[in-house]
Amino acid sequence: MKVKIDGKTVSYRNVWIEGETVNMIDQTRLPFEFRMHKTKNYRETAEAIRRMQIRGAPAIGVAASYGLAQAALEFEGLETKKFWEQMEDVAQEFLNTRPTAVDMHNMVARMLMAMKRAETPQQCVEIALNESQRIAEENAEACKNIGLLGRNLIKDGDGVLTHCNTGALGTVDYGTALSIIRFAHYQNKDFYVLATETRPWLQGRLTSWELTQEDIKHYVIADNAAGYYMKKGDVRIVLVGADRISSNGDIINKIGTYTLATLAHENKIPFVVAAPTTSIDLNQKAKDIIIEERDLKEITYLKGYNEEKKEFQIIKLYSTDQAKNPIFDITPAKYISKIVTENQIIEPPYNLKKQLNK
Amino acid sequence: MKVKIDGKTVSYRNVWIEGETVNMIDQTRLPFEFRMHKTKNYRETAEAIRRMQIRGAPAIGVAASYGLAQAALEFEGLETKKFWEQMEDVAQEFLNTRPTAVDMHNMVARMLMAMKRAETPQQCVEIALNESQRIAEENAEACKNIGLLGRNLIKDGDGVLTHCNTGALGTVDYGTALSIIRFAHYQNKDFYVLATETRPWLQGRLTSWELTQEDIKHYVIADNAAGYYMKKGDVRIVLVGADRISSNGDIINKIGTYTLATLAHENKIPFVVAAPTTSIDLNQKAKDIIIEERDLKEITYLKGYNEEKKEFQIIKLYSTDQAKNPIFDITPAKYISKIVTENQIIEPPYNLKKQLNK
Repeated sequence: MKVKIDGKTVSYRNVWIEGETVNMIDQTRLPFEFRMHKTKNYRETAEAIRRMQIRGAPAIGVAASYGLAQAALEFEGLETKKFWEQMEDVAQEFLNTRPTAVDMHNMVARMLMAMKRAETPQQCVEIALNESQRIAEENAEACKNIGLLGRNLIKDGDGVLTHCNTGALGTVDYGTALSIIRFAHYQNKDFYVLATETRPWLQGRLTSWELTQEDIKHYVIADNAAGYYMKKGDVRIVLVGADRISSNGDIINKIGTYTLATLAHENKIPFVVAAPTTSIDLNQKAKDIIIEERDLKEITYLKGYNEEKKEFQIIKLYSTDQAKNPIFDITPAKYISKIVTENQIIEPPYNLKKQLNK
Repeated sequence: MKVKIDGKTVSYRNVWIEGETVNMIDQTRLPFEFRMHKTKNYRETAEAIRRMQIRGAPAIGVAASYGLAQAALEFEGLETKKFWEQMEDVAQEFLNTRPTAVDMHNMVARMLMAMKRAETPQQCVEIALNESQRIAEENAEACKNIGLLGRNLIKDGDGVLTHCNTGALGTVDYGTALSIIRFAHYQNKDFYVLATETRPWLQGRLTSWELTQEDIKHYVIADNAAGYYMKKGDVRIVLVGADRISSNGDIINKIGTYTLATLAHENKIPFVVAAPTTSIDLNQKAKDIIIEERDLKEITYLKGYNEEKKEFQIIKLYSTDQAKNPIFDITPAKYISKIVTENQIIEPPYNLKKQLNK
């Protein structure tokens, strides 16, 4: 992704490993400070995921893969049986950090499978490092291909509505729905983006930051205003990501996605989902997934920037602690016009088990 | 309305006049501080409306009526022609403070009509004071009757979803949609309220504050979560207010109302609008009304409470100033199950010119 630093535009990845250290752009400081967060061991990496310093289904999957490599390095000296017990525990610890995203489950399972080819802990370290690198590369490549494949869905003059952050900051690079926006921009198309704020976490801040880095015309809107602009005719296409896609085409994504899909359907606006195939879960139905509810303080408090003091500050928004904070919802397949993966654009009726050509 | 002060429950109105002073509960300090804002002249009253220290269509209409009485007091000594010129200017100044609400237009027109019965400025002062008091009383009475008439729409065990603040804080007393909730609670019904935050102004803070004063069980939710709870079956009825109702039943209300109505329709949930007849505009169609767009800083900054320092603080949420801030939307009549006024419950098909029995 492009990042403007001191007037220069620099290429950056969202997350990578260097020696034993995982580097990630600290998303809790954006859009006000661009700063790397470095984790020296798997515990710090898991903590960074829990604290949402890194977020977005593919990004945390890759971070967890790197975390397993860190753990292998740390446990290298243990005797084999003990080593594997520890590795299993670490894998479970990562899976517990964020229960809903399927990418992490897939990537962690892939890491374990690869690592088990090793005969000794020492051999396993090399395999773990290589496999985590491969997972990261594949994600960056998949996101790039989503953008290249999907870019022609955006036409000159379009209003494009997007939700949450589906950018490079949620993946290794490029993003999913935002990759499509990025590559349409590289075609010199003239369009604008309406970026929903996405309460409670306001990931619209991240989207707006990424779009600013790329000089893509955009406006942040309250989640409440999405329907207004759809009805007014200012939105020609809605582009969102997905944390999980079921075989029948139902998706689990950031809270509010179902609302946008309903509004798009009502206003006859194409509603397009972009995600790498690693986000597809052929085994479970969306309705069987337990929706993650997070700390109520995410509703009742908010972090922002105090311009006078030039520091982050947390303010209280409510005098009550009576709140509810579900962070995903399920959007039924009937409202989804297309699903863009790195390999293909899938049209309804969805039967992904059959439609996926890997 | 009930207000808990130092462990006691006290009866309060939202706005009243005492001598030359208009008293209003300062809504920019709630829910953290309960404080009266007092305006000594019409300019301060207009400023309080602009600064949203008082808000809600009926409340600002009443405040403007009081403001006209304040102006009459101030201009009493002028010669008659000059007096009327000044009064016309003041009326226009109030109308300019918040362009969308119809109550203020109706109430200001009514004030001017009454005042013009006066033969001298001195006589006009008395008329203005009396008429503004009458307008306030009638609003309180209307809101009470909305509650009494509508309370049986809420059943035991219901989940009631509401948007924005439609409580006593938006009227003289009781509220509109929230009056229904209040009087259903007085019937000892067991139900709970889901109160949307209502970005950008977070009027859910006010709703939550009022419900807390009355010990009504409730939860604040992100606007994004409304669809989730409707689909989940946790919402049996949606109750909202209206800033304007057209003769055909279309309503103009807080941004996000159209979204909720669409979601309610989709999930076969009754969507009920509560408003006094002063909010009904038989002359203009909703689609001909220009939607007010407010300062973008309402999106990009947010005021809250710093618990450590025990003071209000404004934090910056976005690094961009590329935002859009429409504050009303239009909900088409086809999604509105009932309209509750102080006189009747109106059912579709709507033709309010015929259906209103005053």
